[in-house]
Amino acid sequence: MSDNDPDARTAHGAGRTVADLGEEGVIAAATRRVTADPRVPVGPGDDAAVVLAPDGRVVVSSDAVVEGRHFRFDLSTPEHVGRRVIAQNAADIAAMGAVCTAFTVTLGCPADTAAEVIERLSEGIAAGAAAAGGAVVGGDVVRTDQVIVSVTVLGDLAGRAPVLLSGARPGDVLAVCGTLGHSAAGLAALEARDAECPEVVAVYRVPEPPLAAGPTAADAGATAMTDVSDGLVRDARAIAMASRVTVDLDPAALDPQPGAPHPDPLLARAASRRGAAALDWVLTGGEDHALLATFPPDVVLPKGFRRIGRVLAGEPGVTVADEPAPERGGWTSFVSNEE
Amino acid sequence: MSDNDPDARTAHGAGRTVADLGEEGVIAAATRRVTADPRVPVGPGDDAAVVLAPDGRVVVSSDAVVEGRHFRFDLSTPEHVGRRVIAQNAADIAAMGAVCTAFTVTLGCPADTAAEVIERLSEGIAAGAAAAGGAVVGGDVVRTDQVIVSVTVLGDLAGRAPVLLSGARPGDVLAVCGTLGHSAAGLAALEARDAECPEVVAVYRVPEPPLAAGPTAADAGATAMTDVSDGLVRDARAIAMASRVTVDLDPAALDPQPGAPHPDPLLARAASRRGAAALDWVLTGGEDHALLATFPPDVVLPKGFRRIGRVLAGEPGVTVADEPAPERGGWTSFVSNEE
Repeated sequence: MSDNDPDARTAHGAGRTVADLGEEGVIAAATRRVTADPRVPVGPGDDAAVVLAPDGRVVVSSDAVVEGRHFRFDLSTPEHVGRRVIAQNAADIAAMGAVCTAFTVTLGCPADTAAEVIERLSEGIAAGAAAAGGAVVGGDVVRTDQVIVSVTVLGDLAGRAPVLLSGARPGDVLAVCGTLGHSAAGLAALEARDAECPEVVAVYRVPEPPLAAGPTAADAGATAMTDVSDGLVRDARAIAMASRVTVDLDPAALDPQPGAPHPDPLLARAASRRGAAALDWVLTGGEDHALLATFPPDVVLPKGFRRIGRVLAGEPGVTVADEPAPERGGWTSFVSNEE
Repeated sequence: MSDNDPDARTAHGAGRTVADLGEEGVIAAATRRVTADPRVPVGPGDDAAVVLAPDGRVVVSSDAVVEGRHFRFDLSTPEHVGRRVIAQNAADIAAMGAVCTAFTVTLGCPADTAAEVIERLSEGIAAGAAAAGGAVVGGDVVRTDQVIVSVTVLGDLAGRAPVLLSGARPGDVLAVCGTLGHSAAGLAALEARDAECPEVVAVYRVPEPPLAAGPTAADAGATAMTDVSDGLVRDARAIAMASRVTVDLDPAALDPQPGAPHPDPLLARAASRRGAAALDWVLTGGEDHALLATFPPDVVLPKGFRRIGRVLAGEPGVTVADEPAPERGGWTSFVSNEE
């Protein structure tokens, strides 16, 4: 199967399909790489799994991806899809200041899906889970018209207070850890069949959220935190609305051009090749899953975080250098004009 | 919307659709009925929820249903669908000997789905969660070609050892709590448009697993347990294979006819009206979500459980009065000849 085969999902010639594997075969393929984990007293195969929750609380979040909507098999391999859905789930746990412990994966696919696709998707899921420090402990397999991967992630706070959207206070510093706009730039490069921007294409296919920075930020006193999944303006707005504050973004700190305070040569180059405005990608491109956090003004920002704005008293919302932020852009599920 | 409208999913006339609601509107509809719960320090609306896990372990399971495959809007209302998917998830927690604490719900639906359908589905989910003793703490909304409800349930063992599939021992008693075959009988009645069997139709639409019997069975010393989701023979086989024992079913104890040791007049009547063999529904009909458990021979069975067989040393598998059990029947996702 090539990366650019739009029919990559179905079996060709004599290839096995998931209908040949059957439900138990699909589950066996999906859980083959599950290894013993001391934090998982009961793993896959029973009615439910049992996962240690040493903190006495468990952090839980669910996030799904749908073929043709969140990914395309002509732009991503099954391994990419598996790694990506795990990464975006893991980012939600990091954004609470917690560490991942376990994942469940519900897989929906048409009966004519190639068995190889499911096996490679499962490899990606297993690799992603290992990278995130969690175990795949269970799930379900159902027949659907499109490939759907619905993931739930569990995490542990290790005694920390969860970092919420609602804790930002006027005077706080707004900071980010991780890339912004790379995923959007990578998708644009793929759609233009531009092979000269492999770094941003890699972020589109498999974002690498700075997971360890979540607990570190919590320990440093972060007052609010989220991951940038819908675009910087939209996710900053989520903090602003929940905290009833104005979040003001500093365009100089976000400008990726050479000579700016925080240049981003990969993004600047990708934008130049597309004739695109790199700052637009920074402000509205989602799915890099950088961590966006607010800190008290006197805090020394943890390693990896850089200041990109400030928190002000005022009308809840987002401004860019005190001007209203663009309303458009960022991901919503049912609006027709987005990617 | 009537119960027998095959186009019941889409909006008619000037009705609002989920595209009108948008993702945030759908999420608002789905979480409107979430109320404060002392076991949920952080509820829906943040990157992740935080749920108490007082035992220091969390039990987790995921189960999804797909329109046209696991439910049909001409046979079930949206409320039924919501209650049913929660009930089947909750049964997996009970089958471990645990109690439900929380649910996440990932909802996929086409953009032309009536907003009313999502609101009623959400009401069913909320009602089902309340009945199961858990809170709906989060989830995701995605656009798909069919309605899909993917649920993850969390549970707490309250210090109990989890009851696994693998603990049955030769000499144990096999017992069941709850109905068998009613869901299959209810589906058959609905498909025959037979209005004279409302009790079994109700079980098809919304099974009521005996959730409290799970922890009770664990406390009474159950050695293995599962819920009957795929059919009695298939689920007994899961215990037999995991425990490396023969599970022998007693047809006299399972016979629903009047005069048998455990008559089941509702099932016998439904079978009579269809000209069907009631015992077949008992052996292979799934989705009642009764609890099937093995107990040491000297145990007084907990209230609600009745003896239906025994555990023997021998080839792992299921027999009925020492004869091999029927291979067919029971639910599998990718086999083409099932319901």
